[in-house]
Amino acid sequence: MYIGVDLGGTKIKIGIVNEEGQIVSSGIINTDPSHNDKIIMRDMTEEIDRLIKQEGLQTIDIKSIGIGVPGLVDYEKGSIIYCTNLSWYNVEAVSYLKEHFNIPVYIENDATVAAYAESLFGSTKEAKDSVFLTIGTGIGGGIIINKQIIRGAHGAGSEIGHMVIGENFYDCNCGRNGCFETLASATAMIKYALHKIATDYPNSSLKGLFEKNGQLEAKDIFDQAALGDPLATETVHRTAKYMAIGIANIYNILDPEIIAIGGGVSKAGDSFFDLIRSKVKKMTLVDSESIDYGKIVRAELGNDAGIVGAAFLSKQA
Amino acid sequence: MYIGVDLGGTKIKIGIVNEEGQIVSSGIINTDPSHNDKIIMRDMTEEIDRLIKQEGLQTIDIKSIGIGVPGLVDYEKGSIIYCTNLSWYNVEAVSYLKEHFNIPVYIENDATVAAYAESLFGSTKEAKDSVFLTIGTGIGGGIIINKQIIRGAHGAGSEIGHMVIGENFYDCNCGRNGCFETLASATAMIKYALHKIATDYPNSSLKGLFEKNGQLEAKDIFDQAALGDPLATETVHRTAKYMAIGIANIYNILDPEIIAIGGGVSKAGDSFFDLIRSKVKKMTLVDSESIDYGKIVRAELGNDAGIVGAAFLSKQA
Repeated sequence: MYIGVDLGGTKIKIGIVNEEGQIVSSGIINTDPSHNDKIIMRDMTEEIDRLIKQEGLQTIDIKSIGIGVPGLVDYEKGSIIYCTNLSWYNVEAVSYLKEHFNIPVYIENDATVAAYAESLFGSTKEAKDSVFLTIGTGIGGGIIINKQIIRGAHGAGSEIGHMVIGENFYDCNCGRNGCFETLASATAMIKYALHKIATDYPNSSLKGLFEKNGQLEAKDIFDQAALGDPLATETVHRTAKYMAIGIANIYNILDPEIIAIGGGVSKAGDSFFDLIRSKVKKMTLVDSESIDYGKIVRAELGNDAGIVGAAFLSKQA
Repeated sequence: MYIGVDLGGTKIKIGIVNEEGQIVSSGIINTDPSHNDKIIMRDMTEEIDRLIKQEGLQTIDIKSIGIGVPGLVDYEKGSIIYCTNLSWYNVEAVSYLKEHFNIPVYIENDATVAAYAESLFGSTKEAKDSVFLTIGTGIGGGIIINKQIIRGAHGAGSEIGHMVIGENFYDCNCGRNGCFETLASATAMIKYALHKIATDYPNSSLKGLFEKNGQLEAKDIFDQAALGDPLATETVHRTAKYMAIGIANIYNILDPEIIAIGGGVSKAGDSFFDLIRSKVKKMTLVDSESIDYGKIVRAELGNDAGIVGAAFLSKQA
């Protein structure tokens, strides 16, 4: 059995996972952002102990623990370099858990963890080389080559959301302009639509929805585009354009067999996926009529990917 | 001994290389573009035979032959998918040479070959993970991870010059807009300067040079920028901006230990390299004050990289 930990900004999901990648038991604890890393690490440890006991197991039955972190990690040192959501900087998460459990502990970026889970048990399991993108409020990425996680020399690789691909009307949180995630995430869609309501489309149906609900969601934009609203349609096409640029860039740099897309935007309809596929096809250097190239699929494991991928990090060690 | 072949648009360079990566003997033959692939492959074969004989060797003394190709190759099949400069499509180069010499033959993209040579004997030999960019008329790239060539699932990876990073006033040869090589190559510099002479800078010293010499070179632009010409200065800064975006993107995606730059633009002065370094430093997600991150160096092997890297392709097989 393995333990996988999916460390989130508002909650920590923990699962006991068997050799087949099935979550046999799981628990969730809330992460109170007013608590410091020591308290949260202690809560995590207690929840792991509770789950082990609940399953009638002992620590000796657990081969390893893995943690997926929404931030930058130092895989070698086993520390979290930074995790913005939790305001954590240089947290020695691995040594903390190792000391308590006395078993191997691994740490990795959460999108990379999900990419690994998909490559073991999900949408990319047939591929040796694959890239996973999680497209929601931001864009995270994970790169698998020859079934191995590619983390870069300092664990700072696969930050695909911060690949600059164009020019934008607002800057990214990272301080730069034109990051992939500011042009093709759900947040990017919403910001663009609100910006355009204020400037060019005062009569868009999205304006009414925004006023009624006090907010706008990517789903509203997809729905209104399907109903023919011009701004919603323009926003979907702009998003598709930049998503295709980002995906084609990945094909032109890494040439994976498959790119899998997870996160909120992956729930968009088939017509959106077909739009992306047709745009990417025109942007890659290889004639994808003659060879099987440029496959874009939906991720399959959903929220479980975080726990399952983390649990299996020991297989990469 | 190994044979390395550097297939170019106007000439083919062939070398016999020893175990230490030294070229012990070399020859050059011209590639007449009016000749078809069969004639050129025959000329190449004859030159290889001549060099072997000249060195007092026999075919049995040669462990392998490697070819670097300025185009897309199918490494598995040993064929050239396309090579625009020579108008070659689907040329079975490996089987041709194998039939003649009856020793192992390998084929690879030329920028990847140079990246491999640099990682074995040149600027990136200390690094496990490195990226090589050759910046001249276009931008070529080679990716080395864990001392292994990363070629992608169809050999179509590392086309870093065709990563879209912005918007441009002219389209790339590949049909898209905003490719790295249309924003940061020597050609990009020249096209931008000529475009701006026609629109905003009729009095630039670059105009006089262009009229005198009938052409403009990247070196002219660097030289005139050093003398204070406003358009030349603007062009150098624009080039530096996009070069930094492209390089920072590579760091954010692959996090190599070193990025080495070869090709004509690598001959620019130290001040240009320092400008790039300072811009990249501001664009990566890692604080490069605290860790050794984001190293940018000049490639070391120059024109020899093509022969040496090709010669050693058998080490990757």
